[in-house]
Amino acid sequence: MARFFVAGCNRPKGGTVLLTGADADHARVLRLRVGDRIEVCDGAGTDRRCVIRAFGSGEVEAEVEEIEPCASEPTVQVKVVAGLPKQGERADYVVQKSTECGATEIVFFLSHRCVARPDGYALEKKLSRWQRIAEEAAKQSGRGVIPAVSAVEDFAGALDAAIKTELPLFFYETGDRVPLKQALEEAGVVRSAAVITGPEGGFEPWEAELAAKTGFRVCSMGPRILRCETAPVAALNALMYATGNF
Amino acid sequence: MARFFVAGCNRPKGGTVLLTGADADHARVLRLRVGDRIEVCDGAGTDRRCVIRAFGSGEVEAEVEEIEPCASEPTVQVKVVAGLPKQGERADYVVQKSTECGATEIVFFLSHRCVARPDGYALEKKLSRWQRIAEEAAKQSGRGVIPAVSAVEDFAGALDAAIKTELPLFFYETGDRVPLKQALEEAGVVRSAAVITGPEGGFEPWEAELAAKTGFRVCSMGPRILRCETAPVAALNALMYATGNF
Repeated sequence: MARFFVAGCNRPKGGTVLLTGADADHARVLRLRVGDRIEVCDGAGTDRRCVIRAFGSGEVEAEVEEIEPCASEPTVQVKVVAGLPKQGERADYVVQKSTECGATEIVFFLSHRCVARPDGYALEKKLSRWQRIAEEAAKQSGRGVIPAVSAVEDFAGALDAAIKTELPLFFYETGDRVPLKQALEEAGVVRSAAVITGPEGGFEPWEAELAAKTGFRVCSMGPRILRCETAPVAALNALMYATGNF
Repeated sequence: MARFFVAGCNRPKGGTVLLTGADADHARVLRLRVGDRIEVCDGAGTDRRCVIRAFGSGEVEAEVEEIEPCASEPTVQVKVVAGLPKQGERADYVVQKSTECGATEIVFFLSHRCVARPDGYALEKKLSRWQRIAEEAAKQSGRGVIPAVSAVEDFAGALDAAIKTELPLFFYETGDRVPLKQALEEAGVVRSAAVITGPEGGFEPWEAELAAKTGFRVCSMGPRILRCETAPVAALNALMYATGNF
């Protein structure tokens, strides 16, 4: 069944959903007709099964037949909180792969060893680019949620974004750490988690100490050193696997 | 300690290892001196701790003090067997990320739905490019093994490359499948495994049937549809996590 994203769509059963713009064009490309069924996702975890009622000028009208939670969403909500990489393509990669692999939210942060320091305008442009990448990846992978992509301007903001989850994990490449497996097994069933990973140069020791004091589990991902764009996705995959969402 | 790769290095304790070319230049950039200790990896899982004895013209002589297995290698040898992606950068990505995440070998194959059909010359060029990417990624991530990258020209070759492992896994996006977690838990401790994933268009039903008949576990990675370059790395991460190599 063809699937469309209409962000914020909140029509009740019997109500009318409108496809407009690129979605309406896409419905035409798919040669959909009156009476055909489509799936409309609100981008926030709910699907609406609809039946097409009419084709207008540049829009398609569909009636809501059924409303149900999107089956492809994981049982655990994971925030990916990553140090802003120096190279733009690495950040794009974090957004695309984290979305495919089931993240609920993606937060970039600036920390001591971040090289990239975009100003307000540049950051705005990047954020809208990342949000588009997340939307595309969510559609392609059949997600029910489009992860929100945001940025915080300091390390404290990163800790704050992550600590509000049931299982805040901080990945550090040295020092006192537990294997991720141990941290996950000790945590038991969780409904939310966060993974914090550093930029290219990693973390300052005081940053890791602050995270530990704030209540994070400081974890390792084994003896291999992962690149800054690889680590968050690897951690996310392990988390999804461990929680039965794979 | 500075780490160098000298492929095929097999000097015994007390023997002399020579760093040449870019490695010798790199030793100079690092301002290493006579008496400094370095680590020399043979690219096949063994490290040699050496002490620098002399700097020659374009070469550095070091004496082997200790020989030990490389600590960063996983306990399970995983072959990543992936349908050749249409876009070159996706294949590059599979090689780089699989190497970082601990694969022992990477095999690309051509199957029914592969769009890319490089001829012999183009494939040779690609293979040498991929091998360079694997070598770079192995160095960066502290691997002890540089994964061999190869290509087979049909689907039967892919099955053959994977079936020789203790746990050959075939990832299929539809039909009769077990969750990866179940397959791994039922397999118990394994020393070798293979993950087969398809190209952009996925597999033909007969390809999945053939894999099942040949003895593969046909697995799913959950309800989200991963891109062809994302799937092998996600499967590898889950496998490394499940086998305690994370």
